Amino acid sequence: MNYPNGLKKSNIKDSSIVKTISHSNRGMTLESEINDSNQYYREEDIAIIYKKPTPIKITKVDYPSRDKATIKEAFFTVPSTTDYNGLYKGYYIDFEAKETKNKTSFSLDNIHPHQIKHLESINKHKGISFLIVRFTTLNETYLLETKEFLEFINNNNRKSIPINFFKEKGYIIKDGYRPRLDYLKIVDQILEVYKCEKKN
Amino acid sequence: MNYPNGLKKSNIKDSSIVKTISHSNRGMTLESEINDSNQYYREEDIAIIYKKPTPIKITKVDYPSRDKATIKEAFFTVPSTTDYNGLYKGYYIDFEAKETKNKTSFSLDNIHPHQIKHLESINKHKGISFLIVRFTTLNETYLLETKEFLEFINNNNRKSIPINFFKEKGYIIKDGYRPRLDYLKIVDQILEVYKCEKKN
Repeated sequence: MNYPNGLKKSNIKDSSIVKTISHSNRGMTLESEINDSNQYYREEDIAIIYKKPTPIKITKVDYPSRDKATIKEAFFTVPSTTDYNGLYKGYYIDFEAKETKNKTSFSLDNIHPHQIKHLESINKHKGISFLIVRFTTLNETYLLETKEFLEFINNNNRKSIPINFFKEKGYIIKDGYRPRLDYLKIVDQILEVYKCEKKN
Repeated sequence: MNYPNGLKKSNIKDSSIVKTISHSNRGMTLESEINDSNQYYREEDIAIIYKKPTPIKITKVDYPSRDKATIKEAFFTVPSTTDYNGLYKGYYIDFEAKETKNKTSFSLDNIHPHQIKHLESINKHKGISFLIVRFTTLNETYLLETKEFLEFINNNNRKSIPINFFKEKGYIIKDGYRPRLDYLKIVDQILEVYKCEKKN
């Protein structure tokens, strides 16, 4: 279950679609590392964060018997929100994760306009939201808060965010063993700032 | 896009599956009323709450061209979480909605064991979670907080919750025009209590 731009390699003939998938030494995609980490967080009772099911439009269903509905035709639809959301320490968490092979910048084509609008809303309604962006060739993964992301796109006409912006305004997420990608460690730092801002 | 037990009437021949759908004078299902209300909340910038896409397992996909992936075979899978979640006033909101034709009780068969486990976790991690249950024959809709729901199932061996429990421990949600089902009005009441408990 993946979005069109994250489809499994084995299913795809056109290699140009695959470019956002293959990655790193471990052979794990960012998505599977996040899913693994979320599973770890749930099992250890740390946070309850899930990837949302892929949105599809079902156009044909067969009902051979009461229990066995089989979808015979369906299409992937453009997601109107982000891929991941959930709950951590009483806070609403919401984020999108993307990989790029580019070494110097992250193309804004990767984020749909309604996803940007969604992130804006989450930010406004006091949710904790961010992007996780992996530069696969460099094997560097960054967490960028929505407020920084919005500041960039509101003050730039560029169609991509240079990696230096991630280095300056984002947080690097180090590889780990359990969990694979401990992004909540960064969220803890963000929450410290968030709590202070709330107080003042 | 619906779960097997909420499938569109037009697609189904076996009338026994339809029993959770047909409802009320307006001819609107609980699900569509909640979706309408959530859309209203989003448009009015009140809350950002969505129904999650139906979880399905894709087993066959065709790629006639790069942009046109068509799912040729897929199956509905049992949801591991609830149907709805989102953000309201900085709080994480999570709930499941169910209809019953029964006039006297709500069968616990309607809620999967892993959904109960999920609601328990959300409750523990300080999310705001609840059930919305509509007794369609009576045209009465109740919001029952997870803590009350858990108290019932932990202290009873009954396989259904009597409607009187909803009357005593839940909140009735009145029909409205815009939004159709203003369940956030009840959440406001819950939040008042929640804030007081946090202070003490």
